[in-house]
Amino acid sequence: MQQQISVITLGIADIARSRRFYTEGFGWSPVFENEEIIFYQMNGFVLGTFLQSSLETDMNRGGLVRPGAFSLAHNVAGEKEVDAVIECLLSAGGVLLRAPDEPPPGGYRGYVADPDDHAWEIAWNPAWAIDARGMVTFGV
Amino acid sequence: MQQQISVITLGIADIARSRRFYTEGFGWSPVFENEEIIFYQMNGFVLGTFLQSSLETDMNRGGLVRPGAFSLAHNVAGEKEVDAVIECLLSAGGVLLRAPDEPPPGGYRGYVADPDDHAWEIAWNPAWAIDARGMVTFGV
Repeated sequence: MQQQISVITLGIADIARSRRFYTEGFGWSPVFENEEIIFYQMNGFVLGTFLQSSLETDMNRGGLVRPGAFSLAHNVAGEKEVDAVIECLLSAGGVLLRAPDEPPPGGYRGYVADPDDHAWEIAWNPAWAIDARGMVTFGV
Repeated sequence: MQQQISVITLGIADIARSRRFYTEGFGWSPVFENEEIIFYQMNGFVLGTFLQSSLETDMNRGGLVRPGAFSLAHNVAGEKEVDAVIECLLSAGGVLLRAPDEPPPGGYRGYVADPDDHAWEIAWNPAWAIDARGMVTFGV
């Protein structure tokens, strides 16, 4: 089977509030949007932000809770960029979970919750390559 | 800022149980593993399965709960493949959330929870291109 994920879908409560975080905080552009879902074309897959009630209907399971046991990471090219991205996210409705510092393996990272309490790690990890198209390769 | 996600990290309770689901159910190979984390190199980013207690420490936030308000999707090339992948996942410790059927926009999909209650949608969506390297492009 292909070692592949096609979509990450985040359940959200308010489309406009979430859209502001992703378009103004990260500066990302939607590839599609309507009143219940926004899709962003990412590096080899798609990010969706979907009204939680609609996600629960689609998944055939109610009672989704937050904060969920997961995080997403956006890696950048250096320490100063970590600080800058976190500042942008906080200005666009994010909430600081962890001010940036050095994790045990080295590098530099902090965590911000999006307006729906989904955790984003903003990290500089010099061992992981990121190419010009945003494709990320594991490294140690 | 690059429209890029570097890592999806799932909080898990039991490394061996989760490893079985991803390596036997999906048939994926780790690129790195130790006693608290397993990384899988995916299509342009990395999937991590990390002990929840370690994720909470790293994130500086306790009390992560499940099932979280998100889902991941693995798209395949046809209806029969959806059924086959779901069968593999159920054999490797997955729990059926939604038996496959046709969603409103067309195509075919079902949902399976991994052993830590994280939801996976297995989908055939003929509008979305998947290339030989697993890179997925949004389409309508």
